[in-house]
Amino acid sequence: MTWPSHGSNPQYLYEAMDKPMPADRIDFSANINPLGPPRELKDKWGNLFQYITDYPDPHAAFLKSKLAAEEGIKETQILVGNGGAELITLIGRMIAGKSVLIIQPAFSEYEEACRVNNCTVYYHQLEPEDWGLNVEALSEKLKFADVLFFCNPNNPTGVFYPLSIVEELIKKCRIHNCLLIMDEAFYDFVEGYQSIVPFIGRDSNVVVLRSMTKMFSIPGLRLGYMMASERLIERAASLKPHWSVNALALKAGEWCLNSNEHVRLTKNLIRQERERLVQFYRNLDFEVSPSSVNFYVLRDSSLDVQLPLFQFLLEKGIIPRHTMNFPGLEGRWLRFAIKGPKDNDRLMEAMQEWRKDR
Amino acid sequence: MTWPSHGSNPQYLYEAMDKPMPADRIDFSANINPLGPPRELKDKWGNLFQYITDYPDPHAAFLKSKLAAEEGIKETQILVGNGGAELITLIGRMIAGKSVLIIQPAFSEYEEACRVNNCTVYYHQLEPEDWGLNVEALSEKLKFADVLFFCNPNNPTGVFYPLSIVEELIKKCRIHNCLLIMDEAFYDFVEGYQSIVPFIGRDSNVVVLRSMTKMFSIPGLRLGYMMASERLIERAASLKPHWSVNALALKAGEWCLNSNEHVRLTKNLIRQERERLVQFYRNLDFEVSPSSVNFYVLRDSSLDVQLPLFQFLLEKGIIPRHTMNFPGLEGRWLRFAIKGPKDNDRLMEAMQEWRKDR
Repeated sequence: MTWPSHGSNPQYLYEAMDKPMPADRIDFSANINPLGPPRELKDKWGNLFQYITDYPDPHAAFLKSKLAAEEGIKETQILVGNGGAELITLIGRMIAGKSVLIIQPAFSEYEEACRVNNCTVYYHQLEPEDWGLNVEALSEKLKFADVLFFCNPNNPTGVFYPLSIVEELIKKCRIHNCLLIMDEAFYDFVEGYQSIVPFIGRDSNVVVLRSMTKMFSIPGLRLGYMMASERLIERAASLKPHWSVNALALKAGEWCLNSNEHVRLTKNLIRQERERLVQFYRNLDFEVSPSSVNFYVLRDSSLDVQLPLFQFLLEKGIIPRHTMNFPGLEGRWLRFAIKGPKDNDRLMEAMQEWRKDR
Repeated sequence: MTWPSHGSNPQYLYEAMDKPMPADRIDFSANINPLGPPRELKDKWGNLFQYITDYPDPHAAFLKSKLAAEEGIKETQILVGNGGAELITLIGRMIAGKSVLIIQPAFSEYEEACRVNNCTVYYHQLEPEDWGLNVEALSEKLKFADVLFFCNPNNPTGVFYPLSIVEELIKKCRIHNCLLIMDEAFYDFVEGYQSIVPFIGRDSNVVVLRSMTKMFSIPGLRLGYMMASERLIERAASLKPHWSVNALALKAGEWCLNSNEHVRLTKNLIRQERERLVQFYRNLDFEVSPSSVNFYVLRDSSLDVQLPLFQFLLEKGIIPRHTMNFPGLEGRWLRFAIKGPKDNDRLMEAMQEWRKDR
């Protein structure tokens, strides 16, 4: 069988495993805010209809000006994209044929984008239990790399590497003339996050990727942005299809940037639920990654590959994300989104049952 | 000044021309169905909200199966894309470095996609008044071309080249081992259109591009598809960002395929309005292209470049598409969408006034 390369769209997973998909299921495989989209977006949904009949602004001028004001950089240092995935694809093209180091485990699209552009790909592997990043050890490998991909907060582990470490990393990349691609798709779930955006003005070798689909629960709309030097933004823009960001995503994006209260409530909920889950897993002797965000990886240490647990959960309509295509994990962990209390309760019940049977 | 490279988003045009944008304006620069989206889409808009919180199906399986059934080809011969523009970008990558012939005038994205991929670009120019395509003359140039782009019905002229001519073209392309990219973005406005899709099964060198945003008035949602040999589709899919087609476009696309009555009504309206406009222009001694679709190019033959007419109309809030970046036209024509009777009346009034003053 071929494992689906991403979470969500569980029909492909059940199909691949040749299992019927339960009607009563909860999808823990997509890391989306359990509170859903901001209220404003729901309330004004009717108004959005008018925007489908006209071409979207190909320059995303209004959203870009709001982002620039928010981040304290120039509009010419921002490119709005059709989700993080499009921006990763564009970066892949820009680094075609280069030597690329990926801090693993990581979102699989980096490697995909590199391979399709004939890059040579190397890994720097993070290891459990703490998934710590040793910048000195990594630095040795930077000598032979043109580009470094770093997913922070890390997907799939949820581990966040604070500014002190990132700053050191940026310094090393500068020394070795290495382009650093920082994917911050989940930055807005981190409490006390300190921005690395100020580095963009100073360091032409730092690229920051952001997603707006996770916090604001709009993965169906597709919206992300990239911040970098004007030169890199210009080059990326020249490779992008003309109207790749749809009009609804642009409009929704503007409203999302006004939703500070929604972000605050989300962070509170996620912290509470994460603490509750971690406590529960520890009591039942599961290994859990020290996540700072809305997902985590977990393993039953009595198993190597977690396939029996995975199948047990799927049959109960609980859908984790397999980790078969995450280098260094290869199925020995499962990833779960942190959802609302009721869904998490159901997950914990199933885990309790799993434990009971063993 | 820099002319905007496309129609729609008239704020950029007024900005470039340093003119205030009238509040009461009609945008004739985007070739979108004046009847708007199908009723079903409007009626069910509220239901679509639920789709924004989940990732779209990256394989567009359901829409693809409906398209395959409709077109009589295999699902593996179809790729659903984020509008025609994304598909053109993908094709650009697939033909990187090749020698490309473009039948001009044509949608400017072909050349854009070729240039960014270091293709060598040649033109075969169509000429007024009839914009006829002489396949024999073209054939000579095919000897030195790897790829041929042909926009049929032609954008910007609206001229449609029937199956007899296209068949001959396909034959010549086969002989000269040339990949033919047929952009049929406006095919569904043509009365009596005969499909060239059956060639896809037989000729691995035919690619057909289609847009769903014009007939169904959903340019803000972005939706198009490409039909070609399985090998080409597979290659294009490997270059496409993972979730590039948003969930609303996928859902809307399914409903649009059920909207035969909407298509019929649209064709009727467009034909009536086109006949009315052409008659009017002839009486006033304007030159008009023999369009078969929902737009046409026009010129006042007493002028070379049509800038005075263009400016006159813009000041009245009537927005044509400039043709500065259409090779062979270079401002000597203006393009207009065919809109509803009221809007067309206002256009004709303005044209009458223009004539009266001269």
